[in-house]
Amino acid sequence: MLGAMQDWELRVSLLIDHAAREHGSREIVTSWADGSETRTDWSGIRRDALKMVQALQRLGIGKGDRVATLAMNHSRHLVTWYGATGAGGVLHTINPRLFDDQLDYIANHAEDRILIYDAAFQPIVDRMRDRWTTIEHYVCFDAADHAPAFEDWIGAEDGDADWVQGSERDPCMLCYTSGTTGHPKGVLFEHRSNMLHTYAALMPQCLDLDARASVLPVVPMFHANNWGFPWAAAAVGAKLVYCSSNAAETLCRLIRQEDVNYVAGVPTVWLSLLQHVDATGQEMPPITKALTGGSAMPRAIIERLMASGIRIAHAWGMTETSPIATIAFEPANFDSLSFDEQVTIKARQGTALFGVELRTVDLDDPAKVLPRDGKSAGALQVRGPWVIKRYFKADKDATDAEQWFDTGDVALLHPDGTLQLTDRTKDVIKSGGEWISSVELENAAVAHPAVAEAAAIGVYHPKWDERPILVVVRKPGMAVTGEELLGLLAQKVAKWWLPDAVEFVDEIPHTGTGKISKKDLRDQFRTYRLAE
Amino acid sequence: MLGAMQDWELRVSLLIDHAAREHGSREIVTSWADGSETRTDWSGIRRDALKMVQALQRLGIGKGDRVATLAMNHSRHLVTWYGATGAGGVLHTINPRLFDDQLDYIANHAEDRILIYDAAFQPIVDRMRDRWTTIEHYVCFDAADHAPAFEDWIGAEDGDADWVQGSERDPCMLCYTSGTTGHPKGVLFEHRSNMLHTYAALMPQCLDLDARASVLPVVPMFHANNWGFPWAAAAVGAKLVYCSSNAAETLCRLIRQEDVNYVAGVPTVWLSLLQHVDATGQEMPPITKALTGGSAMPRAIIERLMASGIRIAHAWGMTETSPIATIAFEPANFDSLSFDEQVTIKARQGTALFGVELRTVDLDDPAKVLPRDGKSAGALQVRGPWVIKRYFKADKDATDAEQWFDTGDVALLHPDGTLQLTDRTKDVIKSGGEWISSVELENAAVAHPAVAEAAAIGVYHPKWDERPILVVVRKPGMAVTGEELLGLLAQKVAKWWLPDAVEFVDEIPHTGTGKISKKDLRDQFRTYRLAE
Repeated sequence: MLGAMQDWELRVSLLIDHAAREHGSREIVTSWADGSETRTDWSGIRRDALKMVQALQRLGIGKGDRVATLAMNHSRHLVTWYGATGAGGVLHTINPRLFDDQLDYIANHAEDRILIYDAAFQPIVDRMRDRWTTIEHYVCFDAADHAPAFEDWIGAEDGDADWVQGSERDPCMLCYTSGTTGHPKGVLFEHRSNMLHTYAALMPQCLDLDARASVLPVVPMFHANNWGFPWAAAAVGAKLVYCSSNAAETLCRLIRQEDVNYVAGVPTVWLSLLQHVDATGQEMPPITKALTGGSAMPRAIIERLMASGIRIAHAWGMTETSPIATIAFEPANFDSLSFDEQVTIKARQGTALFGVELRTVDLDDPAKVLPRDGKSAGALQVRGPWVIKRYFKADKDATDAEQWFDTGDVALLHPDGTLQLTDRTKDVIKSGGEWISSVELENAAVAHPAVAEAAAIGVYHPKWDERPILVVVRKPGMAVTGEELLGLLAQKVAKWWLPDAVEFVDEIPHTGTGKISKKDLRDQFRTYRLAE
Repeated sequence: MLGAMQDWELRVSLLIDHAAREHGSREIVTSWADGSETRTDWSGIRRDALKMVQALQRLGIGKGDRVATLAMNHSRHLVTWYGATGAGGVLHTINPRLFDDQLDYIANHAEDRILIYDAAFQPIVDRMRDRWTTIEHYVCFDAADHAPAFEDWIGAEDGDADWVQGSERDPCMLCYTSGTTGHPKGVLFEHRSNMLHTYAALMPQCLDLDARASVLPVVPMFHANNWGFPWAAAAVGAKLVYCSSNAAETLCRLIRQEDVNYVAGVPTVWLSLLQHVDATGQEMPPITKALTGGSAMPRAIIERLMASGIRIAHAWGMTETSPIATIAFEPANFDSLSFDEQVTIKARQGTALFGVELRTVDLDDPAKVLPRDGKSAGALQVRGPWVIKRYFKADKDATDAEQWFDTGDVALLHPDGTLQLTDRTKDVIKSGGEWISSVELENAAVAHPAVAEAAAIGVYHPKWDERPILVVVRKPGMAVTGEELLGLLAQKVAKWWLPDAVEFVDEIPHTGTGKISKKDLRDQFRTYRLAE
């Protein structure tokens, strides 16, 4: 090298150092489950995280060790993000909504050495304790009877410590994804991948986050890197407002009280906020920016929010992509479009954030890359520096030789690069060699006012290999027939896509994260035979 | 490693790939010196850059080789940024305003192998050709008589090439800084440092650049990495508008014609734009964002621009910092401040961009770090992943053991981290063991309507070691006495700071980049003796 720029390992501790130094007094507010509120600031988070580094080291927990949390959103959880990673450890955020067998599997698979949990999850800890064989230490985020309280635990330290240094390629965080088949799989984020994701996410056409932002992340901290907010907010000194409850009334009150101008949540959060506003006759709280993702945001909600002057960022990604991969931002000609056209853009999953690359390949022949023609649906693949290479402890890469990761989604790409998801690879129905999107059938069905839930699955057919059937749960006290639904669907989809049968059931099985479990549903209908 | 995210070398070629893929039809417009205009787009830039890779390879120019340009701002220069770096080479942007001895030195020191130049600089090439001993090939950006024309040169290739791959720590660009003493020094940017600078610069509280931006970078492409625009614009698909002329009339016409909403330029550019608007009675062109830097932006200009609804980003940095280090962004309470308070914030040099760290140390004792108290002025030091470690071909690092780089500036840091530059280390005057800021004396003096230019320097004093004198150039036909000026200064600075003498001269010496050369001025006054 004949000259050079400086040597820096991109580690997440740089974020909290920056936040404490440049935005030290910017507040972090928590509304707890019991209705109480506490306030700290970025300086306080850093001080407590350094104390936690010492407390972990006192337990012999350090480089590469997994530090698990079982907790909702609050400032002590945020301390843990920086404390665990700052100690050189790997923060493992466990989703408390998983089934016991999954909770069993992931804590043992992760080899968690310590678990820090909310008192509200004491029943889970009591139930699982004997099954979790690697966890040596339990700490409770609240004052608790069964484990040391977090504040006491770190309170015994003076905070006069340094962050553990190391390579930017060191792991810093572990998030498990619960697929519909097999065991959950661990995604091991690196310091570097999180730092690059942070820089990219800050862009005006992504999170668009700055020092004036007062952010309420309704998305759980145990879910998909919390969409990156604990890192991104530190980079710009945004205020963070945490709420242990997702009740719309509590959220609305907190938004007004804390001058929240930025809310991030899945579509159902937005729906319940709007329902609350309508039911109580309130005005919409003074939010200016909204981030949504997790599942496709219904157009009607987007319209409502945009009409209220809220700038919507509609993102798509998955735990395996850290999670933000695409974002529906404003294209060059956005300001000249009609309101309806603008809504259409925001209702899509957007285009690739700089750093991420997308392509679709033929479902039957993955070597065949499909054109970006807005018509050819195929398997969606993604790659980039914050996309997974290999699942935790897997013995081979999850990518091909060119680092393409198959997302398990079926999608099409429009000529302008816009992503449109059409199905999950596992759920798409193959009939007579052609593919039918289960999602499009379901979307058409749930538009009927009497349909509470609908799922389309493929069942065996002697001639066509598979044919779709529609499984429907009616809303309580409401009536609808199969003929009516097929008539509705016939207006929306090709004739050969129409389900061969409509079955009404009392309940459709769900996964631990609340999604319809197509796998369980297919199991239920494994012996189902269509009338020929 | 138990699992991992993907392996990617952060190379600038990823930027142009992204721009061509996701924003391929977004235009790059050039207004040439002869008044003609050409249009291309990000796809076209990429295609031409790949052709240039082939053309360079045909000449045997590749990895690590220096590719020099001597050119104003235009689309072909942009092609060269991506072509030279995409070939694995090091783009060396030469400042055509340097003196011949400097031009001689840097091209030979850089060991440039090829020079691509504007026809307008043919006289420089003719003058220097015999002195430039390493340059093997000359190409002219315009159709020219003396060298192959750029379009013909790359036009002979088919563009069916790949970017040269390598480490993200490979150098990709070389910019020389002309100090006031000694030879110019080369700053060797890396692919990685440029990529991280790009991500950071995109932030809403920095460039705030998105796909809707139509950017006119008035800052020359040969100056300090062009403030990062060729890279940042590609990351978000911004439109770029280049103008070979800096004439206000031409710029204003182009701004309106190309829907430019974003202009970047040094304060004198803004001054001339405003003067043109005033002189012609036009309305201010419909710009919404302005970036300025290079020297402190006068408050009056900031007021005018902000009153016109323009969001100003006032940055500070230097070639050694890629260049953006600090930015005067909107703090959390910005919207609640008065217009005057908002202007005050924007008139300062801002706070550290995430990734950059600042400190000030005692001028006499660099081991003593000064507090951020808004009072203690000291030597400004900076560090971060896009800050220089070692000058090109230097035999030792330009940093201390903790990677702090001394900027050569004297500054103070306010409690909120805001940077306030007060002087250059070399120019500060030491009197009786205490430091006097030459810049503050000069700022006070130039406020007098009859003063065209003023420079304060220290001269020998038997008792105080140094005392300040003020050297002044009067405006043509205007009168002012030394007593008047000292009276004016007495209202602004401490009594013991007042210059011991005021000397009127016809001319003050300047450097190749148009700044006052304090070094030459001190040489002129070396034998000056104050009356005791």
